[in-house]
Amino acid sequence: MSDRAARDESRAATVSDYTEHELIARIQQRLAPPPDWLVVGIGDDAAVVEPERNRMEVVTVDAVVDGVHFDRAFVPPDAIGHRALAVNLSDLAAMGASPRFALLSLMLPGELPLDDFDGLAAGCVALARTHRLHLVGGNLTRTRGPLTVDLTAAGTVKRRQVLTRGGARPGDELYLTGSIGSARAGLEILRDDRANENRSDWSKTAVERYLYPQPRVRAGMLLGRNRVASACVDLSDGLADAAHRIAESSGVGIEVDEATVPIEADVRRWFAERSEDPVLSAATGGDDYELLVAVRPRGRRQLTAVIRQAGVPFTRVGVCTASPDQVTIGGRPMPPGYGHFRPVGRFRVPSDGGGR
Amino acid sequence: MSDRAARDESRAATVSDYTEHELIARIQQRLAPPPDWLVVGIGDDAAVVEPERNRMEVVTVDAVVDGVHFDRAFVPPDAIGHRALAVNLSDLAAMGASPRFALLSLMLPGELPLDDFDGLAAGCVALARTHRLHLVGGNLTRTRGPLTVDLTAAGTVKRRQVLTRGGARPGDELYLTGSIGSARAGLEILRDDRANENRSDWSKTAVERYLYPQPRVRAGMLLGRNRVASACVDLSDGLADAAHRIAESSGVGIEVDEATVPIEADVRRWFAERSEDPVLSAATGGDDYELLVAVRPRGRRQLTAVIRQAGVPFTRVGVCTASPDQVTIGGRPMPPGYGHFRPVGRFRVPSDGGGR
Repeated sequence: MSDRAARDESRAATVSDYTEHELIARIQQRLAPPPDWLVVGIGDDAAVVEPERNRMEVVTVDAVVDGVHFDRAFVPPDAIGHRALAVNLSDLAAMGASPRFALLSLMLPGELPLDDFDGLAAGCVALARTHRLHLVGGNLTRTRGPLTVDLTAAGTVKRRQVLTRGGARPGDELYLTGSIGSARAGLEILRDDRANENRSDWSKTAVERYLYPQPRVRAGMLLGRNRVASACVDLSDGLADAAHRIAESSGVGIEVDEATVPIEADVRRWFAERSEDPVLSAATGGDDYELLVAVRPRGRRQLTAVIRQAGVPFTRVGVCTASPDQVTIGGRPMPPGYGHFRPVGRFRVPSDGGGR
Repeated sequence: MSDRAARDESRAATVSDYTEHELIARIQQRLAPPPDWLVVGIGDDAAVVEPERNRMEVVTVDAVVDGVHFDRAFVPPDAIGHRALAVNLSDLAAMGASPRFALLSLMLPGELPLDDFDGLAAGCVALARTHRLHLVGGNLTRTRGPLTVDLTAAGTVKRRQVLTRGGARPGDELYLTGSIGSARAGLEILRDDRANENRSDWSKTAVERYLYPQPRVRAGMLLGRNRVASACVDLSDGLADAAHRIAESSGVGIEVDEATVPIEADVRRWFAERSEDPVLSAATGGDDYELLVAVRPRGRRQLTAVIRQAGVPFTRVGVCTASPDQVTIGGRPMPPGYGHFRPVGRFRVPSDGGGR
């Protein structure tokens, strides 16, 4: 603890006790050694990176806001940092890109405990290291509002391997990675029982999936490399929203087969016990970072190769049709997706991720 | 106005009346046609850009927060959008980079009037077009806190033309673009007299400089191209802070000649009337987006060429010395710079840019 923080030993240190410079140094010391393509790193007016030869650059930005996308009351700091990066890695995965670098922009309330700041940085940097993504810069600023983590991520992909939402054709089959609904169940379990006592194994797993989502980076890269996907989108706003996105961008209809949607048995039971339709609840819930992928029927064999290499299950959940914008599940119209229940699209309200 | 907004005609439309999709469309319609290097633009999981051949990429992120960096009570929406981009363009300029693209991340309070949203977008897009920077993507999210605009900007520069803070040597001369102090005066004039009545010509100019700073993009590019600068930094946190940054990164001392610091005569008088030391107040004030540049003595002639082409005045304000970290102004120690008066470095408190 610095002299400054020690001034008043009766309270825990907050970010207000430190200069921007000192706080940046606390993040920097966690980083992996700078890669050789980083010409100028943290500490100048901007970062300078050498582009990768013969590859396109993929860039995305996504923010998480306390009380909107998470709740500091029950989401630990390292999970906040993890999730802020995960949502962006998921976007890179949906484009078929290999992660490369990120810029971390933090809006910090002055009373944020230094331990929380450190935890947030640790969670973000740990996930970055897993995916060989380097933090090359960022910005710290104070806010009078809630803790906000805005992250810009960049990756690279060969031009012919870019995955978009727009290439699906009627007859293409739709596959989903992993399973859905667990994160939504995990969030509610966490909110209702913060003490974490007597939690069953499946609910521990569900909570873990909400707190530390694993973006499908490897699957996305392999799908791009094998050129097996005609369209791809990530599920940050739920399966329903993802299906609408592909339908809209590709100009196709989509029929999702209700019976095939992959939901863990315990999660399915948990939804049913709450008198919710498990499939609809899971499909319209957020916080799943799976990929929804369209594949030409003749691509099925190649997909099998991707599945083997990616180490992630893919489930066939539906098919693209020639009825533009007709998106159905079990023969009925698919709800408009997560964000669209809310007045401002993805502008999530507290019941989604927060509740403060 | 959409049907949704028309529901309650007794009040003005807010962003809450619109979906994310609709709000993004309102920004998109203002954009210039997409450049040919933009492979995938707004509307997919991420943007895809083709890197520029034989050039390095320069990336930076900076946020402006209502009540911290500006105040919605007296800063019009288009100035908020302008300033959010200007601070980032200034960082690119300080690296010698040509602006290329940006990602705009907005944290919006639900009650933000739609007109303010449109104004903010208009201000940002207008400045982007001036500098041929293309908005390739972004993110919109709701916040329960203050309006926050986080902008990531990218530019390009040849490897040998990158300007850093670290190349100054003892004997190098220090030059400053434009003049300082006007923005600080403009902010206070604006805050004290929002009605904008009976404002003199010089104070109108000062207010304009606070609201619509013109980053020194062309000067930065020319300095890089001519390889005349041994170090360069932008003045977002004031001249005092900038001098400390070059001293620190280059391992030199800096002597600023008090008498040469360029401050408009009226601004100088305004400070004096408030019993402030004009030079110290201007040097430690923020919101100036000038460049501080170190030049080898033999580079003086080349600098003259840059000045002629850039159309911006440069003033010699000091010299680098062999006494590492000794930064002085008029023979006395230079104050630690803008942000360092505050407990958290650049974490500005309301009196700097706000006051709500």
